[in-house]
Amino acid sequence: MDVAEALALRKTVRKFEKDGLILTRDQIEEMLALATLAPSECGLKPWRFVVVRDSARKEALYECCYRLELVREASAVVIVCGDSLAFLNAPEETFEGGGADATKHDGTGDYLKMLKRFNSSSEYQRFMLAVRSPSACAMALLLVAAERGVGSCPIFYYDEACLRKEFGIPDQWAIVMLCALGMPAAGAETFEKPDKSDVKAFVWHEGVEPMRF
Amino acid sequence: MDVAEALALRKTVRKFEKDGLILTRDQIEEMLALATLAPSECGLKPWRFVVVRDSARKEALYECCYRLELVREASAVVIVCGDSLAFLNAPEETFEGGGADATKHDGTGDYLKMLKRFNSSSEYQRFMLAVRSPSACAMALLLVAAERGVGSCPIFYYDEACLRKEFGIPDQWAIVMLCALGMPAAGAETFEKPDKSDVKAFVWHEGVEPMRF
Repeated sequence: MDVAEALALRKTVRKFEKDGLILTRDQIEEMLALATLAPSECGLKPWRFVVVRDSARKEALYECCYRLELVREASAVVIVCGDSLAFLNAPEETFEGGGADATKHDGTGDYLKMLKRFNSSSEYQRFMLAVRSPSACAMALLLVAAERGVGSCPIFYYDEACLRKEFGIPDQWAIVMLCALGMPAAGAETFEKPDKSDVKAFVWHEGVEPMRF
Repeated sequence: MDVAEALALRKTVRKFEKDGLILTRDQIEEMLALATLAPSECGLKPWRFVVVRDSARKEALYECCYRLELVREASAVVIVCGDSLAFLNAPEETFEGGGADATKHDGTGDYLKMLKRFNSSSEYQRFMLAVRSPSACAMALLLVAAERGVGSCPIFYYDEACLRKEFGIPDQWAIVMLCALGMPAAGAETFEKPDKSDVKAFVWHEGVEPMRF
């Protein structure tokens, strides 16, 4: 299945067949190993994953997700997080582009120092670090799942405080989204995909004309 | 090429062959049409794309990217943005899961109202809306590019104020990342991928043990 097919096939599953599919730790870790081939800023890999497979833990997760039924039905739910302080203890060689020709953009600056300064400069930048590439990872995970015939549902609404308490998620991690994985229930509804021609509504060329947004 | 292959093949290109590849508007829009098959919270599609192909505009972009040379060499650079207020004017049918069985999670609430409340509740939630699914889209775009033999480089460091001024990007849009697209220069370095076994460092099962982060 090629990427375009996986993108078209991936649909948000609304109902899973309970116990319809068992995903082992190894299977999930292998999917995550692929997903983490996503890029991250400076190679900092801020993504962190909490995998929930145990029934009792899924009940706790269900409560944290405003009683979204499919959380109970899912084979596994991956809580995708991002460490807003991933840059702090990163050794220099961690940085993608570490090395002679990457220490500067324009030949004058110290790139690594600039990046560390950038990340630590504001809450906004730390938040960006924590959310962007883990979101990219989550997308890769959904596509890997689609390719393997595993149904998925990204979950964007949840009680953060509940998740932190129940799953020990530290404050410095942003909780980015949850990816529920499982076997789609027979005849279950999925979301319709938009018509491709839609895209022009979201694209501007060379700049945003003030009248267009 | 399957998803796993595209993930492995996608590498951050450090140098493009200038004029090595011409990407037309139609080609880029078609790639973005695929990329926007990514999920978004409630189907709000907060992603917004500014496509830069013109040489003079690329010079301006180069200045906004701290003189990152590959910006000039790229065939096109897509400025991936997210509208933090995408929920404001969304008609009810926009919401993924609009319809009878999706109006509530637990059978007691009004789901749509809950979601609107959620999105408007804090700057943090609006920021999440603006960053998560556009980042997912960007990942899909990088994979679609990889599948087509188009080299790519995600750019995470740029002068936001410069981009807003030069490209008319409104304040309510978060600038999520830039995706430069082009033909990799012959012999150009790319970033190494981590060993797959790495993934265990990023995965916790059933909860985060306090000693592990």
